[in-house]
Amino acid sequence: MNDYEHDIDLQRFTVGIDLALEAKEMVESGGKGPIPGVLSEVIEDDGITITRLDIVDEQGSQLMGKMIGHYVTFEVPELRKQDTGLQDRVATKLAQEFETFLERIGIGKTANVLIVGLGNWNVTPDALGPIVVENTLVTRHFFELMPDQVAPGYRNVSAIAPGVLGITGIESSDVVQGIVERAKPDVIIAIDALASKALERVNTTIQIADTGIHPGSGIGNKRKGLTKELLGVPVIAIGVPTVVYASTIVNNTIDLMRNHVKDQNGNTDHIFGLINQMEENDRLQLVREALGPLGHDLLVTPKEIDQFIEDIANIVASGLNAALHDAVDKTNVSAYTH
Amino acid sequence: MNDYEHDIDLQRFTVGIDLALEAKEMVESGGKGPIPGVLSEVIEDDGITITRLDIVDEQGSQLMGKMIGHYVTFEVPELRKQDTGLQDRVATKLAQEFETFLERIGIGKTANVLIVGLGNWNVTPDALGPIVVENTLVTRHFFELMPDQVAPGYRNVSAIAPGVLGITGIESSDVVQGIVERAKPDVIIAIDALASKALERVNTTIQIADTGIHPGSGIGNKRKGLTKELLGVPVIAIGVPTVVYASTIVNNTIDLMRNHVKDQNGNTDHIFGLINQMEENDRLQLVREALGPLGHDLLVTPKEIDQFIEDIANIVASGLNAALHDAVDKTNVSAYTH
Amino acid sequence: MNDYEHDIDLQRFTVGIDLALEAKEMVESGGKGPIPGVLSEVIEDDGITITRLDIVDEQGSQLMGKMIGHYVTFEVPELRKQDTGLQDRVATKLAQEFETFLERIGIGKTANVLIVGLGNWNVTPDALGPIVVENTLVTRHFFELMPDQVAPGYRNVSAIAPGVLGITGIESSDVVQGIVERAKPDVIIAIDALASKALERVNTTIQIADTGIHPGSGIGNKRKGLTKELLGVPVIAIGVPTVVYASTIVNNTIDLMRNHVKDQNGNTDHIFGLINQMEENDRLQLVREALGPLGHDLLVTPKEIDQFIEDIANIVASGLNAALHDAVDKTNVSAYTH
Amino acid sequence: MNDYEHDIDLQRFTVGIDLALEAKEMVESGGKGPIPGVLSEVIEDDGITITRLDIVDEQGSQLMGKMIGHYVTFEVPELRKQDTGLQDRVATKLAQEFETFLERIGIGKTANVLIVGLGNWNVTPDALGPIVVENTLVTRHFFELMPDQVAPGYRNVSAIAPGVLGITGIESSDVVQGIVERAKPDVIIAIDALASKALERVNTTIQIADTGIHPGSGIGNKRKGLTKELLGVPVIAIGVPTVVYASTIVNNTIDLMRNHVKDQNGNTDHIFGLINQMEENDRLQLVREALGPLGHDLLVTPKEIDQFIEDIANIVASGLNAALHDAVDKTNVSAYTH
Repeated sequence: MNDYEHDIDLQRFTVGIDLALEAKEMVESGGKGPIPGVLSEVIEDDGITITRLDIVDEQGSQLMGKMIGHYVTFEVPELRKQDTGLQDRVATKLAQEFETFLERIGIGKTANVLIVGLGNWNVTPDALGPIVVENTLVTRHFFELMPDQVAPGYRNVSAIAPGVLGITGIESSDVVQGIVERAKPDVIIAIDALASKALERVNTTIQIADTGIHPGSGIGNKRKGLTKELLGVPVIAIGVPTVVYASTIVNNTIDLMRNHVKDQNGNTDHIFGLINQMEENDRLQLVREALGPLGHDLLVTPKEIDQFIEDIANIVASGLNAALHDAVDKTNVSAYTH
Repeated sequence: MNDYEHDIDLQRFTVGIDLALEAKEMVESGGKGPIPGVLSEVIEDDGITITRLDIVDEQGSQLMGKMIGHYVTFEVPELRKQDTGLQDRVATKLAQEFETFLERIGIGKTANVLIVGLGNWNVTPDALGPIVVENTLVTRHFFELMPDQVAPGYRNVSAIAPGVLGITGIESSDVVQGIVERAKPDVIIAIDALASKALERVNTTIQIADTGIHPGSGIGNKRKGLTKELLGVPVIAIGVPTVVYASTIVNNTIDLMRNHVKDQNGNTDHIFGLINQMEENDRLQLVREALGPLGHDLLVTPKEIDQFIEDIANIVASGLNAALHDAVDKTNVSAYTH
Repeated sequence: MNDYEHDIDLQRFTVGIDLALEAKEMVESGGKGPIPGVLSEVIEDDGITITRLDIVDEQGSQLMGKMIGHYVTFEVPELRKQDTGLQDRVATKLAQEFETFLERIGIGKTANVLIVGLGNWNVTPDALGPIVVENTLVTRHFFELMPDQVAPGYRNVSAIAPGVLGITGIESSDVVQGIVERAKPDVIIAIDALASKALERVNTTIQIADTGIHPGSGIGNKRKGLTKELLGVPVIAIGVPTVVYASTIVNNTIDLMRNHVKDQNGNTDHIFGLINQMEENDRLQLVREALGPLGHDLLVTPKEIDQFIEDIANIVASGLNAALHDAVDKTNVSAYTH
Repeated sequence: MNDYEHDIDLQRFTVGIDLALEAKEMVESGGKGPIPGVLSEVIEDDGITITRLDIVDEQGSQLMGKMIGHYVTFEVPELRKQDTGLQDRVATKLAQEFETFLERIGIGKTANVLIVGLGNWNVTPDALGPIVVENTLVTRHFFELMPDQVAPGYRNVSAIAPGVLGITGIESSDVVQGIVERAKPDVIIAIDALASKALERVNTTIQIADTGIHPGSGIGNKRKGLTKELLGVPVIAIGVPTVVYASTIVNNTIDLMRNHVKDQNGNTDHIFGLINQMEENDRLQLVREALGPLGHDLLVTPKEIDQFIEDIANIVASGLNAALHDAVDKTNVSAYTH
């Protein structure tokens, strides 16, 4: 049973593997000038790069290979350095950016929110969602039980960590669907740990998108994702890459090696032979075949993952608390989480 | 907000505070002979006392102050001694007794089961339910995704830890109701940590009952419990006392002191004065008044609670796994949990 | 073996069970006016009561039943309310008070410090010392390995959690003695969880004293404590009550009940009978006898202990970091711990 | 400070990076027939490969690049599959093999043992040593405090987790040296997590060696290791690879790719160009240079590390408990750990 279970979990990790940012970089690197149907804006702020990217029509969507929607990405390369000052700044920026994001996609100040923390408590790199849920300022029960006593500046927020299929035997989407029918939120914010396409993104990048969470093709296409189509309300996904495939590391590094050597020689064919001329996907396929038989195309994570997850979960929870509740001080957002 | 939240949590702990066993002891101690409408049977087995107690009619129910239903209680006074041999024996007995229990209440070998682990991951004495869920052998996803490949001897089991109101803002019963509509179980098994009426019961007693989980009166009676009425399928509750009120300790001890002194003197009035003649409830009220103003009628738990909870959660999970799946070896039940 | 081990652990908890503050209260309540040989000063600051108490001579020592030395006690009744603002204020006050304390007992700005975190990682209410060690800003290795690169404002600090006898088989004092010979600190700061004489003190009180940690009478008097006599350098003890005996709760509450009833009646003999006239120790003995045979004079702790311990450990670690290193900002001390 | 601290920790992970087994494979792959001065024996047992390897003289030592000594390696490729049956078998084999190992190196049945768990509680892949210590059956305190009451079949065992330099500011070797002087063990068993040279070894391999723990060159050569020279008694090291460098994964995979392609073509130069002809070390250097500037030659670990570490720590602790104490049943060794 375990292997199958494992496969299921891997699938969850492939969902959302592509950051919109990476898609844009790929498209641009092959192209000339701006991408039609795609608007983007980059803000640099002392170690934090924020990219706002809107895919506005079908053409943009096809060129990017991503859904029409709004995407915001935080890139903070130094985030693994455990600098609490930087963490506070990222949380504060995230709060501001998320508040703007809600406005842009038409979610009002009083819209009820359900936060969904996907993932597994017991697997540290997959515990991001549940830890965010634990640190979220929920208020729905006060609105339900004593509505006239809720202080101004708070909106109706609830939160759930639906668990993973291997632990519950129930699709997360089924759990969430049941709750949505009862809690009747106006919008869902789903937090998830992602597999990254690049080692340097692990625990340094946060993506916000209003496109929901889409399943991989899955076994018999039975897995459902968390989408507006399924749930009836908009679904904002907040994703953080926390793991990376061993094969991805290898493939990325071969590229880095080629750039490294090319910088000095101009040409690399004699060094890399046919490898040099392979399409990236063919080469990745070769890497996987090499790792595969030994069963070690593992999903790996930095050894300091315990601390990294705690730090980034606090940033996300702090940012959400400040963005969702006007009553939470936006200049010192981390005071409201543990 | 915190105080109110705290009150809500306390309420959860008062739910089910009375073990049927304790009700029976109280009724019998005041009465003469067997209680009409109540059948009971006690099995002693080398440190494990199992009491099967059926309340069969309204008269029994009123006399006992408990609902009509089937109750089984395990009492294992030595369970806090961390003896792994004893733990294995209790898990094995629990598996056998639970299997019989299911038969007696008419739950067949192929009935689908949803296990609900009530409580809070982050408060150790309240984490029993979630830890049991984590160690449960779930199979529902195999039945859903590839039904023809499930090995014989396994039944369809799913499991959920719905979280607590203070963390989610959503009633556990609402979460469960939503899941029941989707997972369509034939029976629910709800695991919960209880507040005990007696210090010696803490982490030494396990009660099984087919009466569901009933809410306290609650704030505005809005809390709903987990019952057949609400959920449409039978609800079996498995409860373990893990905490006790400071006031309960005091009140129990005054009784113990009276017995202790009476043993030698026959009479205690001159020693205990009016205290001696108070109704138990009046005396408890006096104790609470004394502790209350200082705000320290705390719920307390033994200092070794981390280990106790882990041990007893393993016992319950092992017992359930073996009782629910014929394929699990009933002579060495604990091999299937971590 | 387990029972014996348990006894050993209990003993550790009896060490330091008496707060100097409690001794003073007891002596004063029986006496008239100030106690000879004892100086004291009380500072109230918005929910934080700081008592500085010096026992200056043999007479004071005998009257108080405590060693000659300097004692500072923080009492913060609201500390269990999980108010992060209050926690920050306590940490800041603790830093200031501890810095003054070091001056008063003649420990200079450049004295090397060894922090010793007594207790057991795996028993939450006993994990205070190890958690403080984990959050301490240690610098000794920088002084050893690259002394000319240490920034000004830092002193040489090292830290160790020696474990408990039941886990290591080695007395904490033996472990510390070996380290002292190598690390050659000028002063030791030992952090320990205590058993309280009063439920309301649990996780609300912090005591600092320069008298070291003294063993109970112990089995065959072989346990050694952490003292200047043994280790050759001053030992400052920081203690926090985190557990309380069930018998202590009962005994305290009987007193509270007497006060509660007396407030209304003036007299209590007819209510409490002989109990009323018993010496406190005799009554405690009676309580213990009543609880004892059933083996449930347990050490108990509030059910929220996980959060309480984390909070108070952060306060102590933050306070120490700011007090020991001038380079640490004393106005926002908690930024340096997780 | 943090970067420097990080460097220090990395160094610990380079200690012992070479398994003797890997050295032998490398030497043999370049050579012809058996290696002079090296005796070896391989036992296969249903998924467990045990290699006993003795380096008996200077020649063997130089050829292998390893110290003279006895080495035993367990390779269990399926150990990451979380099969409890296999885990029990490995623990049982480990107990038997370790008992034999002690005999072979002349450690008698009554020799006192000090177990040293190197590493950091708070970094999961580095927590192996401390978790083993926590699950070790220690007895030294019984021998000290009531020697005539220790049951036959137990030897004098103590255990310590000295912490890591970044947390304590004190070298582990200094802590251990101090304890050795007091506890006076006849032999030390040091448990440590290692960085692996190969992804497939991570959490599947256990090495036992009587050569102690040797430091890397270190900053100014000040780090001391745990050796007989330093401590005066034999030091047995038990190492488990739990992390691997990203660069190691890449380099290994390039080899795998070459083998994979060669299998089909016989020749690989046209595919891999100069890469093919590079010395392994030069190529690794190239990989590191490529990863380095971006700061992401991370130490990584499989995402399921929490469970893997718990499983393998239990195996090691169970094996040690059964090997060290005759009174522990060698046919069901895991019953003595949690």
